[in-house]
Amino acid sequence: MRGTLMDIPTYDDMLAAHERIKPHIRRTPILRSDYLSELAGAELYFKCESLQEPGAFKVRGASNAVFGLNEEQARKGVATHSSGNHALCLSYAAGRRGIPCNVVMPRTAPKAKKDAVRRYGGTITECEPSTSSREETFAKVQAETGSEFVHPYNDPRVIAGQGTCAKEMIEQTDGLDMVVAPIGGGGMVSGTCLTLSTLAPETRIIAAEPEQADDAFRSFKAGHIIADDAPETVADGLKVPLKDLTWHFVSNHVTDILTASEQDIVDAMKITWKYLRVVMEPSSAVPLATVLKNKDRFAGKRVGLVITGGNVDLDKLPWLT
Amino acid sequence: MRGTLMDIPTYDDMLAAHERIKPHIRRTPILRSDYLSELAGAELYFKCESLQEPGAFKVRGASNAVFGLNEEQARKGVATHSSGNHALCLSYAAGRRGIPCNVVMPRTAPKAKKDAVRRYGGTITECEPSTSSREETFAKVQAETGSEFVHPYNDPRVIAGQGTCAKEMIEQTDGLDMVVAPIGGGGMVSGTCLTLSTLAPETRIIAAEPEQADDAFRSFKAGHIIADDAPETVADGLKVPLKDLTWHFVSNHVTDILTASEQDIVDAMKITWKYLRVVMEPSSAVPLATVLKNKDRFAGKRVGLVITGGNVDLDKLPWLT
Repeated sequence: MRGTLMDIPTYDDMLAAHERIKPHIRRTPILRSDYLSELAGAELYFKCESLQEPGAFKVRGASNAVFGLNEEQARKGVATHSSGNHALCLSYAAGRRGIPCNVVMPRTAPKAKKDAVRRYGGTITECEPSTSSREETFAKVQAETGSEFVHPYNDPRVIAGQGTCAKEMIEQTDGLDMVVAPIGGGGMVSGTCLTLSTLAPETRIIAAEPEQADDAFRSFKAGHIIADDAPETVADGLKVPLKDLTWHFVSNHVTDILTASEQDIVDAMKITWKYLRVVMEPSSAVPLATVLKNKDRFAGKRVGLVITGGNVDLDKLPWLT
Repeated sequence: MRGTLMDIPTYDDMLAAHERIKPHIRRTPILRSDYLSELAGAELYFKCESLQEPGAFKVRGASNAVFGLNEEQARKGVATHSSGNHALCLSYAAGRRGIPCNVVMPRTAPKAKKDAVRRYGGTITECEPSTSSREETFAKVQAETGSEFVHPYNDPRVIAGQGTCAKEMIEQTDGLDMVVAPIGGGGMVSGTCLTLSTLAPETRIIAAEPEQADDAFRSFKAGHIIADDAPETVADGLKVPLKDLTWHFVSNHVTDILTASEQDIVDAMKITWKYLRVVMEPSSAVPLATVLKNKDRFAGKRVGLVITGGNVDLDKLPWLT
């Protein structure tokens, strides 16, 4: 926080975001698999944000930021850095409004995501796959374009947008005992906290993280942000660290952070493809991986799991490589 | 028809089936992809029967047959032969009623489907992958068990059950100009004809078939059933021939039959996984393959496509072999 006053989004900001973005997002279905519920020993409700048009929940926060700009800001467009889905969702939202979108992406980002950014009209500048290189490259791009920075998660407009997913989950079920969401930078988890702490304070919020990129887990235990530079995990959407705004929500509202090994994540991904029959990313399998590894924590409970995205390179499936 | 009087199911049979099976099936969502609609130049509505618990529309007809049995019939159980999804859906429905299910399957049937039959409690007897071997083996099994034969498609209870899918499609949309469904034995297409000829007679019904198993196409042009023994296609659910009951519906109500090459089918499968983000079988890709190959026929129309099933061997994806 470095002495600055954070602009923490409120529950009303989330409600306003939902109204603003409704024409631009899908109310995605909650899908179920009796087989996976039996396997877990819990009632599982999968909120399939993979079924958004650009394939990820990040279209919610991105649309809220893009459609909340005034005309003068909008003319200069938006800019961001992102490991993937925020980039293509911001490009998608900017395309719907007809404004420019400048994206800094690691050169190692999945080709499927780069292709989608370009298809939606975004302009990509590549950087090295480290937080430091990304931030440096981005500063240059923003200085040149003057476009509005929409951070992939540490932005109140983005967090308010992501919070609309949890609102729909509660509306679409008869309530949930727990929600489990993947954690990378913490945008989805923060939005979930923002919404549930008011709408359903009895619902516990569990963050799910790869063991090999467990900076949020270590931060949570230590009581302050610990950031790693460029961790390696198959869950490529979850490599980024917490920032002040997301740390605010994680430290105040998350019940626990659970981790899963690379093999657990790939196994959970494959059985979800097989039995739920949705195409989803490795990152989206981390919640189920942690539930199956901690069955006693979830036994008999009504558990909502967020399937965060479905943009996968179908030529490089992790159980076939 | 060989001089016998066919028991043609009626629209009321379909309505009764829907009431009977509602506790045992899902009202599957209709999913959309703006990208695929733009690619086709038509408004595409995908009815995702792949999202049924056992992964295929055939749970509708199977459940209607199983739950329509009287107690005496039920005690002896049900029996069938099937290239895959009917087998596992009948096993699933029988399991829900707690009655035996005997299944004759070709030894070449996908392992994923055999595993599912066993998981649902069905008993498998293997045969050679030809229509003649299948019918011979089945006669033996039925003689031994005395169980009720539920044909995979040439059965009025099954056709009435499959017809409930088209009813939901009309209810879930503002009406459709066309429905495109894959055709093998013709069960889904017949159910679609049964329902739409009364409920939405203005909606054209297009059957979609692999070029390499185009017996329905040739039958349609010739005006009588032409059956092939053991055709080869990646769309393994569509290798079986029409029979008298399904021929009745196909010959009276289908507008046209369109075909697609093996490569067209695999390409359509892959882009559906990529942009609609659902796991579906090669058979389920044949409708989109024919739409993309005949764009002028569908231009600007509201087109419903049935994604018939999602039971795939994830270790043997056709674009990776």
